[in-house]
Amino acid sequence: MRVVKLFGRRPRRNDAARLGPRRDSSAAVNRVDLEELTPELLPYLGQAAYLQLVTFETLSRAVATAPSIASKEAMSRCAALSLAKHHGLTAEVVRKGAQPGSTMQPYVAAIDHYARVTAGADWYETLVTSYVTAGLLDDFSRQLAGGLPSDASERIVALLSGDDGHELIVAELRAAIEANPRLASRLALWGRRLVGDTLLVARSALAAHSHPDEARLEPVFTELIAAHTRRMDALGLTA
Amino acid sequence: MRVVKLFGRRPRRNDAARLGPRRDSSAAVNRVDLEELTPELLPYLGQAAYLQLVTFETLSRAVATAPSIASKEAMSRCAALSLAKHHGLTAEVVRKGAQPGSTMQPYVAAIDHYARVTAGADWYETLVTSYVTAGLLDDFSRQLAGGLPSDASERIVALLSGDDGHELIVAELRAAIEANPRLASRLALWGRRLVGDTLLVARSALAAHSHPDEARLEPVFTELIAAHTRRMDALGLTA
Repeated sequence: MRVVKLFGRRPRRNDAARLGPRRDSSAAVNRVDLEELTPELLPYLGQAAYLQLVTFETLSRAVATAPSIASKEAMSRCAALSLAKHHGLTAEVVRKGAQPGSTMQPYVAAIDHYARVTAGADWYETLVTSYVTAGLLDDFSRQLAGGLPSDASERIVALLSGDDGHELIVAELRAAIEANPRLASRLALWGRRLVGDTLLVARSALAAHSHPDEARLEPVFTELIAAHTRRMDALGLTA
Repeated sequence: MRVVKLFGRRPRRNDAARLGPRRDSSAAVNRVDLEELTPELLPYLGQAAYLQLVTFETLSRAVATAPSIASKEAMSRCAALSLAKHHGLTAEVVRKGAQPGSTMQPYVAAIDHYARVTAGADWYETLVTSYVTAGLLDDFSRQLAGGLPSDASERIVALLSGDDGHELIVAELRAAIEANPRLASRLALWGRRLVGDTLLVARSALAAHSHPDEARLEPVFTELIAAHTRRMDALGLTA
């Protein structure tokens, strides 16, 4: 399996000055773990922005293939929200005096590969992909942003915490599963496939140029999986 | 050829109260002609919103198939601008107490057919489609909006007059034609095909339930074609 390399930088475990204040004590342990693996700002932005563009492309396929005009309209809302996040991230790139294209370029091939293997075979799988991968990756990128320089960190965390329109996707999928209960097992299986590929992306992001202590990463991934399980629960599916 | 029926309403030639002030004397003759054919607000919005969604879908295909990350990023800007216009139009639908989906529904089949025949075979044709059809249809919808109730009219004209990012498409296409001059004749031909199909949509919009005096419509279409010719000139192509 091809490994996607993201956020490649040696962790700076003693770089205490970059940890910043704990803003949310409930997740502080995990966030501090990730903050200790803080990436440089531009590589972080290049990868997060391109992942968000891939999420937008998935959603725009969902717009194009929607089975009804109401579904199309709902997915267009999600697509707009994702695209706004992408442009918020590229605005941070420009703010640092860099070009969005060249900043994303090093990560295109690997993320395009990830996008291909998670594309989904039909409208329902595409919706599950939008929901599951965007949920996991936004959670991950948001946690990692906690260790960026503080002004950028605050803007990026706020950006990634914004509305994602996922309630619209949940409503579409719940209605589809209710109308055709046989969808449930196929989509649950697809969700499991996606979470595997997506956690591999996240793990590679942290591990590309370093060898983080697996035990220290464990709680981070446990939290990501717990949030994923809640998202699958919202669909009435087993994670 | 299947005729797309749009804006079906009998023209109200004596409905002078709806003409409103002339805001731009240079195009006043043509605008008044279109205002005399003013559609009802909701049918107007349903059709204009769905045409804009189709423009977004074309642009999102351009994002997905872009040959470079810089081109992809540029097209994502255009897609966001088009999607914002679509949502601006559906917000007007909601403001009138209607649902965007059901308001667009009557026009979906015909506009989907138009979208299929104007889709384009590759990245270059898709870009020309985005540029040529959005240019013509936004001009047309903006002129027609002049005759809507005045508060909605002002908002819609402002919305449709907003940035369309077309300078980004022009830059992409000029660079492509410069790199491969043989593209020019193929894209000029494609542009001519598009203008035919698109003016047919526009004409049907006015003619569906009425029989407007062809002579009176002539200057309207002459102006739309003149603006189209300027757009093709900007590409260095013959209209």
